[in-house]
Amino acid sequence: MNTKVLLNEDEMPRTWYNLVADLSKPPLPPLGPDGKPIGPEQLSAVFPMNLIEQEMSTERWIDIPEEVLAILYRWRPTPLHRAYSLEKALGTPARIYYKNESVSPAGSHKPNTAVPQAYYNKMAGMKKLTTETGAGQWGSALSFACSQFGLECKVYMVRSSYFQKPYRKFLMQTWGGTCVPSPSNETQAGRAILATHPDSPGSLAIAISEAVEEAVGDRSGTTRYALGSVLNHVMLHQTIIGLETKKQLAKFGEKKVDQVIACVGGGSNFAGLAFPFLADKMAGAEIELIPVEPTSCPSLTKGRYAYDLGDVAGMTPYLPMYTLGHSFVPHAMHAGGLRYHGMSPLVSQAAREGLLNPKAVPQLECFQAAVTFAKTEGLVVAPETSHAIAQVIREAKRAKEEGKEKVIVFGLSGHGFLDLQGYADYFSGELTNYDYPAEEVAAAMAELPEFATIG
Amino acid sequence: MNTKVLLNEDEMPRTWYNLVADLSKPPLPPLGPDGKPIGPEQLSAVFPMNLIEQEMSTERWIDIPEEVLAILYRWRPTPLHRAYSLEKALGTPARIYYKNESVSPAGSHKPNTAVPQAYYNKMAGMKKLTTETGAGQWGSALSFACSQFGLECKVYMVRSSYFQKPYRKFLMQTWGGTCVPSPSNETQAGRAILATHPDSPGSLAIAISEAVEEAVGDRSGTTRYALGSVLNHVMLHQTIIGLETKKQLAKFGEKKVDQVIACVGGGSNFAGLAFPFLADKMAGAEIELIPVEPTSCPSLTKGRYAYDLGDVAGMTPYLPMYTLGHSFVPHAMHAGGLRYHGMSPLVSQAAREGLLNPKAVPQLECFQAAVTFAKTEGLVVAPETSHAIAQVIREAKRAKEEGKEKVIVFGLSGHGFLDLQGYADYFSGELTNYDYPAEEVAAAMAELPEFATIG
Repeated sequence: MNTKVLLNEDEMPRTWYNLVADLSKPPLPPLGPDGKPIGPEQLSAVFPMNLIEQEMSTERWIDIPEEVLAILYRWRPTPLHRAYSLEKALGTPARIYYKNESVSPAGSHKPNTAVPQAYYNKMAGMKKLTTETGAGQWGSALSFACSQFGLECKVYMVRSSYFQKPYRKFLMQTWGGTCVPSPSNETQAGRAILATHPDSPGSLAIAISEAVEEAVGDRSGTTRYALGSVLNHVMLHQTIIGLETKKQLAKFGEKKVDQVIACVGGGSNFAGLAFPFLADKMAGAEIELIPVEPTSCPSLTKGRYAYDLGDVAGMTPYLPMYTLGHSFVPHAMHAGGLRYHGMSPLVSQAAREGLLNPKAVPQLECFQAAVTFAKTEGLVVAPETSHAIAQVIREAKRAKEEGKEKVIVFGLSGHGFLDLQGYADYFSGELTNYDYPAEEVAAAMAELPEFATIG
Repeated sequence: MNTKVLLNEDEMPRTWYNLVADLSKPPLPPLGPDGKPIGPEQLSAVFPMNLIEQEMSTERWIDIPEEVLAILYRWRPTPLHRAYSLEKALGTPARIYYKNESVSPAGSHKPNTAVPQAYYNKMAGMKKLTTETGAGQWGSALSFACSQFGLECKVYMVRSSYFQKPYRKFLMQTWGGTCVPSPSNETQAGRAILATHPDSPGSLAIAISEAVEEAVGDRSGTTRYALGSVLNHVMLHQTIIGLETKKQLAKFGEKKVDQVIACVGGGSNFAGLAFPFLADKMAGAEIELIPVEPTSCPSLTKGRYAYDLGDVAGMTPYLPMYTLGHSFVPHAMHAGGLRYHGMSPLVSQAAREGLLNPKAVPQLECFQAAVTFAKTEGLVVAPETSHAIAQVIREAKRAKEEGKEKVIVFGLSGHGFLDLQGYADYFSGELTNYDYPAEEVAAAMAELPEFATIG
């Protein structure tokens, strides 16, 4: 009875999978503030050209550089586990598997893209990267990756998370990164928010504005910005998760997967696991792909497909995505990595084409699911990951009611060792569910320009 | 270029190695408060008989029960990594390997014995386990293990660590365990300390007294005590670490190991990695086995080999060990798991027979080593583990000076995600080195009874 399947280094995928090559329509282009499409050169103050090329690539398979592989090998391929103990506790006929990305140095899937992003920036002659972080998983991962290539790293951390998760900044500091709470006084964007909302809990959209502002404002030309989700090249780098998972499921003897489930904030964790399976679905396989979001920040299940900014201050282009409006500030819940108004354009396009079955889950159900998982499988997961587990438990119970065997695979995106305050608040009864903030979203959406509408 | 070697589940050792079978002399027996040897029946209020039998076993190989293997398989065999990046940073000709125990659910090597201890107690009809914990690694591990067998778990956590590492109690709580700071008001032993030292930072020896008192005081007879180190059966359970490591080194193509290095508090982390190599040494192999302890609590390098109590209140027998005196309270440094006055009788006997080369390292050098390791290999380790790394760096530099290739293997006993306050204090310059507390140790040693002397 195998409880997990490992792969050797020589079995690790050596190319990333680019969904763009298989979509029925090419992705819509990003737009400038005037509503007109923008090209690579207009992005070059923000990202190095080698990553911009990757962002726009239509090649199906893209080689992973040797220097990147050498670092990923430290913890990859990650294990795929069969959740026997959870299955037993639920009494379900479903076979549940989870891909464990928590074994990376930073404790999540984020280093999968942090390492190549640091590498490509280094190759392009950069000396420093700036970024935003929500719960801190991405800022930690980028600090780690920068330490490997001798780059400086500056992280703007969403203020509510900065104080909820104080250990995160020490972790970044250990890898040599600098972490400040956002909104900060270090940028125009930050100062503008603080002037009107001195107690702002911050948001990813605000932190992105600050990080981009610092990058483009560096006159030496050797600072760039790195984004931990949303963009095409980030989705691309994460596909190593799903590519490994498919090999591992085959070694478990599974010929068919019924459901692939992962939490979704900006989209990269879901995309990383699901896109390689989405390729099978587009080729005719019967398979349900379920991104799971919080009910308090439900871009896929309640948002509108429109052009919107990636940040709050307009430092980024307009991207085609499901959005709740870039000025919407989500509740300061514990799953900080899911507090984002928009959704990856590629995930959004797949949803728009009817290829995904998005779900939203309330906070208390998520923590309850996480505790069940800890007591059965033993792993204490990040609050973000708990959204996937809550949905898995729903599906496993449905399988029991229907008496159906089925194969469920979910993404364990990160561990919860630095999120234990959330568990403590859950146990003490301090947590509540947040309703869908319909009015705030409507107000934010009303601010979008006319060209935001996608026909 | 392999950066790590994994093993499949079917390559995992299915027996533990018992050093007792190979020692030149049988271990000295434990003594009661009257200085007379005590037998199994006198321990039966503290431990279940199946574990007492294992404690006294002289068999070389002992089968690991299937139920225990099924749980260990979730994260074992653990990876053995080659530290290429650290080697490069040090410019050393040494080849450095580390066995990564941080991938367990609790984040350290402790579940290796927590799981079998919970299993044997369950088999013996027990319903609850009590224990002590220093930094919280052991208390977390036992909470996890108890959750797997439906046992209650009560943890007395050394007070200085309880407040230094608040997340640890939430982790135990997530697995269903209960954690209180020690000394507590819940036991006679705790109340006696608080009466004279209301601000006592606590110690492992005090917490053990409390945990044993609760176990033996339970009139239902279904509560027992579990110890996370020191005892023979704990050393036994940890040998799976070294047994796996030997197989993995062979797959790396290494025929000879020069140095095995691990941090040492009660002894189980060191014993787990080193005892299987010690067997080779006793059979004639040239190999240096280096337990590394803090200069502030140096039982092996400065202590006396004598009979001493395992705890402060005399709830345990007298054990033959290197000790600093059971009433000695070590400084409240961050490596809470190394704050113990005594040393495992088996590790002590090996040291007494000249088979080990113990070293002591000061706190600042350890944190410096941990930061070097984080920036090179990427992993943020527990403060306990940093002691091993500091010694590895010393040895690697010596190899460079001497121009000698050599093979060093060290134990990465746990991650530091719940110890980041220690790193923060290090960065802020708040940490200092603690000198060897000679006077306090002399005072504690003067309290030992006459029969404590071992000829």
